[in-house]
Amino acid sequence: MLYIVGLGLSDETDITVKGLQAVKGSERIYLEAYTSILTVGKEKLEAYYGKEVVIADREMVETESDAILANADKINVSFLVVGDPYGATTHTDLVIRAREMNIPVQVIHNASIMNAVGACGLQLYNFGQTISIVFFTDTWRPDSFYDRIIENHNIGLHTLCLLDIKVKEQSIENMARGRKIYEPPRYMTVNQAVEQLLEIEENRKQGICTPESLAIGCARIGTSTEQIVAGSLSELLEVDFGGPLHSLVLVGSKMHHMEADFIRAYAVNVESFDALVKKQYKF
Amino acid sequence: MLYIVGLGLSDETDITVKGLQAVKGSERIYLEAYTSILTVGKEKLEAYYGKEVVIADREMVETESDAILANADKINVSFLVVGDPYGATTHTDLVIRAREMNIPVQVIHNASIMNAVGACGLQLYNFGQTISIVFFTDTWRPDSFYDRIIENHNIGLHTLCLLDIKVKEQSIENMARGRKIYEPPRYMTVNQAVEQLLEIEENRKQGICTPESLAIGCARIGTSTEQIVAGSLSELLEVDFGGPLHSLVLVGSKMHHMEADFIRAYAVNVESFDALVKKQYKF
Repeated sequence: MLYIVGLGLSDETDITVKGLQAVKGSERIYLEAYTSILTVGKEKLEAYYGKEVVIADREMVETESDAILANADKINVSFLVVGDPYGATTHTDLVIRAREMNIPVQVIHNASIMNAVGACGLQLYNFGQTISIVFFTDTWRPDSFYDRIIENHNIGLHTLCLLDIKVKEQSIENMARGRKIYEPPRYMTVNQAVEQLLEIEENRKQGICTPESLAIGCARIGTSTEQIVAGSLSELLEVDFGGPLHSLVLVGSKMHHMEADFIRAYAVNVESFDALVKKQYKF
Repeated sequence: MLYIVGLGLSDETDITVKGLQAVKGSERIYLEAYTSILTVGKEKLEAYYGKEVVIADREMVETESDAILANADKINVSFLVVGDPYGATTHTDLVIRAREMNIPVQVIHNASIMNAVGACGLQLYNFGQTISIVFFTDTWRPDSFYDRIIENHNIGLHTLCLLDIKVKEQSIENMARGRKIYEPPRYMTVNQAVEQLLEIEENRKQGICTPESLAIGCARIGTSTEQIVAGSLSELLEVDFGGPLHSLVLVGSKMHHMEADFIRAYAVNVESFDALVKKQYKF
């Protein structure tokens, strides 16, 4: 059996009891470590499970899936995913490959930022499509996701923006020279995401993500140091959200007044929040 | 402390280790029992926790929240929610009330159908807003949610439809006479949802939910009897999905061919699935 086990959002105790049973009954355990992170590392998980955990980086999951799946028709193998197993495309690939090899698969679900973002006080059914914002480089400043934000905006919906994570990335020079030397991990902050959004708006002038647009910066959702701050994009630029992971919610024009009441408690500045809500949302 | 603990989607072992610790350390435990259900009942949970569990119906949560929160500034109280705590509006009300009473709140997240629906093979970031379909009655056949489906449809996105649950409902006669006699619980099936959608389309003729539209019926997602069937709405009308809970996914026009490959394994009829996908999605 291949168990694909969601680990949730915070630490080793966010695994479900069912997930922990699967892990303890597995002969091999892999930890997918490139689409998200917990607040604890592999060593903590190993101590908690009493088992060895192998870090599976993107290269391994995408090119060596058969090694991960080896003998999983006879023994139990657990593949651990931060959040919920179906958060990222890669894991569906692994399920498809297992199916081809006639390996039974059991998915053990857990919380994902896709539902836990409800903690910010906006109702989940008022969210449109989720988008990802990637790090700009000097030569690559993609903005096609802005069209998705506009689509949500046009029908009044909130947008959850997932922010880029770079782990085990090579510099262009190291890549060119075939040197397996990796850069330190980078996690996009709310501030960086806001900067990039304002730059895109500055270029495109579509009136979507302006300095006055209401948004909610979220850091470490589901952990004991969770931080949620509501304000205009220009206000959020100045907020220190601390360590990763961050995400950003763009508030849609159909915000309900109950939602506004809830997120008011997170306002960086209640006075400017009230003024902004009164002006833009008419309550 | 008020702990709001997500129970996940299936049975007593879907609680997280962190959630179980919170429950075991609580003096009072309430189970919200009107927006969703587990595959096990209150007795099973009580045996598993070694504690008494009080069923909190809608009336209790909405009108007696102060009783639920009594002394929660001094003792620990757990409020259990099937799925994730932020799936339903009611629970944000409880958080707001706790804040007003200066009671610290800790939310312990878990899987929700909002993310676990990724099990059907469609990518979560290709979903638009989630909608709810309520039971039609002879005199009340609301269809405003159809406009939300159209909004998703117009930008090519999938729609997750959550299906109605009626627990502890009174008949109109019993309500009029003030008799606290309740009807047996009812859970909308995929078939009933499809029937209602086809009726709305028949009336409105907007070409959105036609008998040929591609959809995925999901039953008991995250449980050991999970059932996922892909097909046209007319095909899904004939499928027996067994016991609750059911949900329905309307497939958007921007479906990726990788998504089609994945859900093909769930086709009620592979031949008609292939023909439909070829005709409507051009691959």
